[in-house]
Amino acid sequence: MLTLYHAPNSRSTRIVQLIHEMGVSDQVSIQEVTIPRQDGSGAVDTANPHPEGKVPCLVHDGAMIRESDAIMLYLTDHFGDNPLGRSIGAPGRGAYLSWLSWYGNVLEPLIVMQFCELSHPGLQATYRDLATANTRLEEALTTHAYLVDDQISAADILISSTYGWAPQLMPDIPAIRDWATRCLDRPATKAIAEQEKSVA
Amino acid sequence: MLTLYHAPNSRSTRIVQLIHEMGVSDQVSIQEVTIPRQDGSGAVDTANPHPEGKVPCLVHDGAMIRESDAIMLYLTDHFGDNPLGRSIGAPGRGAYLSWLSWYGNVLEPLIVMQFCELSHPGLQATYRDLATANTRLEEALTTHAYLVDDQISAADILISSTYGWAPQLMPDIPAIRDWATRCLDRPATKAIAEQEKSVA
Repeated sequence: MLTLYHAPNSRSTRIVQLIHEMGVSDQVSIQEVTIPRQDGSGAVDTANPHPEGKVPCLVHDGAMIRESDAIMLYLTDHFGDNPLGRSIGAPGRGAYLSWLSWYGNVLEPLIVMQFCELSHPGLQATYRDLATANTRLEEALTTHAYLVDDQISAADILISSTYGWAPQLMPDIPAIRDWATRCLDRPATKAIAEQEKSVA
Repeated sequence: MLTLYHAPNSRSTRIVQLIHEMGVSDQVSIQEVTIPRQDGSGAVDTANPHPEGKVPCLVHDGAMIRESDAIMLYLTDHFGDNPLGRSIGAPGRGAYLSWLSWYGNVLEPLIVMQFCELSHPGLQATYRDLATANTRLEEALTTHAYLVDDQISAADILISSTYGWAPQLMPDIPAIRDWATRCLDRPATKAIAEQEKSVA
């Protein structure tokens, strides 16, 4: 049994969107939990098995899977040849893993540091900057329609989710803007986002 | 053909260590490249296909794989039932993916921020702190001998590598210290580290 611990309008929203895009929402139970919110509302939910009360958190037959990229990979691998994943040995598997990792290893730290207005030569040496990250995205998106190839993958859902909750981060780069719009406007993804916003 | 672009005494050293631990060093060509070093020596190497000149960078039949965790996962998946990986469907696959992701998503940002002496409520909200990260490691390592289970995996090689290049980060927590020592003292891992240090 697969259970996703989810807080609406949070980092777990994109996992719900992936589950709907994959067409497996009847096979993953979604349990809503509270989390501490930036405005001071909310709190860690004792029903959430994540040891720090974070979301997303996936539990599969008692085994916990943490971190958005790991959860997306776990789900797409678990459901086999779903078009949102790239199987081991398939063309694009390497790019798929690379983009999933790049999100949390590079893009999210850059975004967090921008929100915190932090800069430091050590950060630059490790993460470069948002302009460099955008160059990586633009290179990929002028080569094919989505990050891995010409078909959307979970990596697109993960990375484009940034511009759903922080549209001010959208760079003035047509290839990125058009791709993010294509990802965020998909019926299943858009329906989840609108449903959650209406509850907020 | 698999080629690893590698700079001695860098983030790619742990990939070389994994390759040797897996016993597949005859199947992965290792190409040494230069990188800019903290002391001002070195430079981006035009022979390195990584668009930012970073290491590690793996190329498999023309396809590039970036990010240490993605490369480790790619290699352990590629070489099938190697004991350093955990296959799809195997017990421990979820924990394996979670620890690989956690390294770059949580532990490395915390370490970089500590080196840069940065703190901010926004960083705390996202990443918590090193003490919390150490609690996660200690919980796992008092449950079993290695992070995923009682057998070493690539996730142990990745995360314990921290204490190889930054021993000052080793917390005074016996379960973590003993595990890191077990990982770093393995003959193949230790031989690579000593060989590279003698060249530095």
